[in-house]
Amino acid sequence: MSLPRIAIDAMGGDEGVRVMVEGAALARRRHDRFKFLLVGDEPRIKAALETHPNLRASSEILHTEGVISGEDKPSQAIRRAKSTSMGLAINAVKTGDAGAAVSAGNTGALMAMAKLALRTMPGIDRPALAALLPTLGDNDVVMLDLGANTECDTRNLVQFAIMGAAYARVVTEREAPRVRLLNIGTEETKGTEELREAANVLKAAAADLSISFDGFTEADKVCRGDVDVVVTDGFSGNIALKAIEGTARFVGDLLRRSFSSSLRSKVGFLVSRPATELLKHHLDPNNHNGAVFLGLNGIVVKSHGSANVAGVANAVAVTARLLEEDVTHRITADLARVGADSLRMRGPMEERA
Amino acid sequence: MSLPRIAIDAMGGDEGVRVMVEGAALARRRHDRFKFLLVGDEPRIKAALETHPNLRASSEILHTEGVISGEDKPSQAIRRAKSTSMGLAINAVKTGDAGAAVSAGNTGALMAMAKLALRTMPGIDRPALAALLPTLGDNDVVMLDLGANTECDTRNLVQFAIMGAAYARVVTEREAPRVRLLNIGTEETKGTEELREAANVLKAAAADLSISFDGFTEADKVCRGDVDVVVTDGFSGNIALKAIEGTARFVGDLLRRSFSSSLRSKVGFLVSRPATELLKHHLDPNNHNGAVFLGLNGIVVKSHGSANVAGVANAVAVTARLLEEDVTHRITADLARVGADSLRMRGPMEERA
Repeated sequence: MSLPRIAIDAMGGDEGVRVMVEGAALARRRHDRFKFLLVGDEPRIKAALETHPNLRASSEILHTEGVISGEDKPSQAIRRAKSTSMGLAINAVKTGDAGAAVSAGNTGALMAMAKLALRTMPGIDRPALAALLPTLGDNDVVMLDLGANTECDTRNLVQFAIMGAAYARVVTEREAPRVRLLNIGTEETKGTEELREAANVLKAAAADLSISFDGFTEADKVCRGDVDVVVTDGFSGNIALKAIEGTARFVGDLLRRSFSSSLRSKVGFLVSRPATELLKHHLDPNNHNGAVFLGLNGIVVKSHGSANVAGVANAVAVTARLLEEDVTHRITADLARVGADSLRMRGPMEERA
Repeated sequence: MSLPRIAIDAMGGDEGVRVMVEGAALARRRHDRFKFLLVGDEPRIKAALETHPNLRASSEILHTEGVISGEDKPSQAIRRAKSTSMGLAINAVKTGDAGAAVSAGNTGALMAMAKLALRTMPGIDRPALAALLPTLGDNDVVMLDLGANTECDTRNLVQFAIMGAAYARVVTEREAPRVRLLNIGTEETKGTEELREAANVLKAAAADLSISFDGFTEADKVCRGDVDVVVTDGFSGNIALKAIEGTARFVGDLLRRSFSSSLRSKVGFLVSRPATELLKHHLDPNNHNGAVFLGLNGIVVKSHGSANVAGVANAVAVTARLLEEDVTHRITADLARVGADSLRMRGPMEERA
């Protein structure tokens, strides 16, 4: 089976062309069946490809000089969809010229463009941004939504659970992923009405959806390793994600400060190097780079703006796995399995639909 | 000036009487002007006091056998207010028998009882739970609300900012505390309508309130040390707090695992002991124990259920400082300074009042 190729917005991100191209080259070494469409300034892409003959051989370049900047508002970006590297990468997914697009550019612009060009899947009201977080367990945890939707209703949360479970099946190979809703307590009475309703719907539909629904979880238990999918609205999800990232960085800074506080500590640091390197590796956001925009007719992956070559390679690898496993069709199948109608009938969602 | 005494719910918390009494004794050594009302089972309190003659000399015991358990619903707890250690400790604040109450018991019950007995201050619609978090800067940051109010409107957020600033003045001795609203981005267009409105109101009222209002902050920047008060609704605040606590614990677990991964790492750990102890001290939640329930006619402080003696001592010390600085009256003065009316007129809050 020939696999759809991956469109890379070569111009987005703080580091520009070189990091995007080298990241793709690194990912290609691990997934050599994939082909690429590199979108952006042709001379600069060609220059970056010079040291990567393998990637060059499996890539086509789509030239454009237009770039969406970090300051561009989504509304401005949309108007420049056909003349920018980000817009053309997404458009390639729309036309079927590529199966997925990867960009390290402006998140708001990327989401707006992707939504407009690719439209949401049948049965999905709103797409969501999903990422993988490290855990103390055997596999990463999928968390969504991370900021695509500031406010969410019950239907949105249920659909996020279905999309998140499909993603988790790819990542964990677990047939019935363990799904929980993020809340401020685990008792059934906790949280907003939307959360309590979503819990009722998911409990009733768990068997049909082939998920293991375990109720609510709290933000301090996301990384404990006993849950595969954490579902939340985009506001809380963004708060939780950034609190986790910020604290990991904060602790790293404190650790560095502690290790340089005395000569003995400095010696200890040198001896402990393998241990701290292990920790650093585990917490390095580049090793979990690649937030997936789920629920559209096509896959769009956001690489972090400050990701390094390894980080971009991870984002491309995530994209490759989602394509290989054909996640978009899996979500469609799951939605069909429970039936959009049956979902609509369960719980008191109908009132707000 | 004689200072109001502190009522201690001696029965709450996972560890029970001994930890509460020893914590109070430790705090008393640092704040020896304070007197205590120890509420709970008299024989057990007396036994715990035997090794603490100084605390015994400055304490009175109020006997009751009733205890609010972790499973009691707030509605059940309220009915037992007059026969439980938690209820009687709060009641002592109501009657003026004590200036503040400290409990390590059931948070929901404590909040419900405190609200009912003490009522909210004039000018405050809803009380909020505030805590101190460690930062990379010179002082801790005050964050509120941490879970008292699942959903908040603009007025609530503005009032939380005023209460948080009063608390921050006590902790930081900064005349104009740096206040920010927690959001999912720093641009003016980000977040919910309530947040954007609250930002407008605080910007206009900053001079009157003697605060430095710096707009929005994101959850990864809470502990950076460049802000004194982070204001948020109780849902997001609870998510952020738990994500921060959980991640600090998670990184600690990873570090422990890394340090025991090889003989070299184990040796490194021994040599680095002072550095890791420094880190442990900085991150130990006991060193930041004591969440304050602000906005009531009286001070109620929640000690963490699993806090150790040092943790309880910190919660009692926080209570002592709040009493010394007379925070409740400071908040009243601040509210008067901006005027409840002027606050109500600014921004589009009136529509929703």
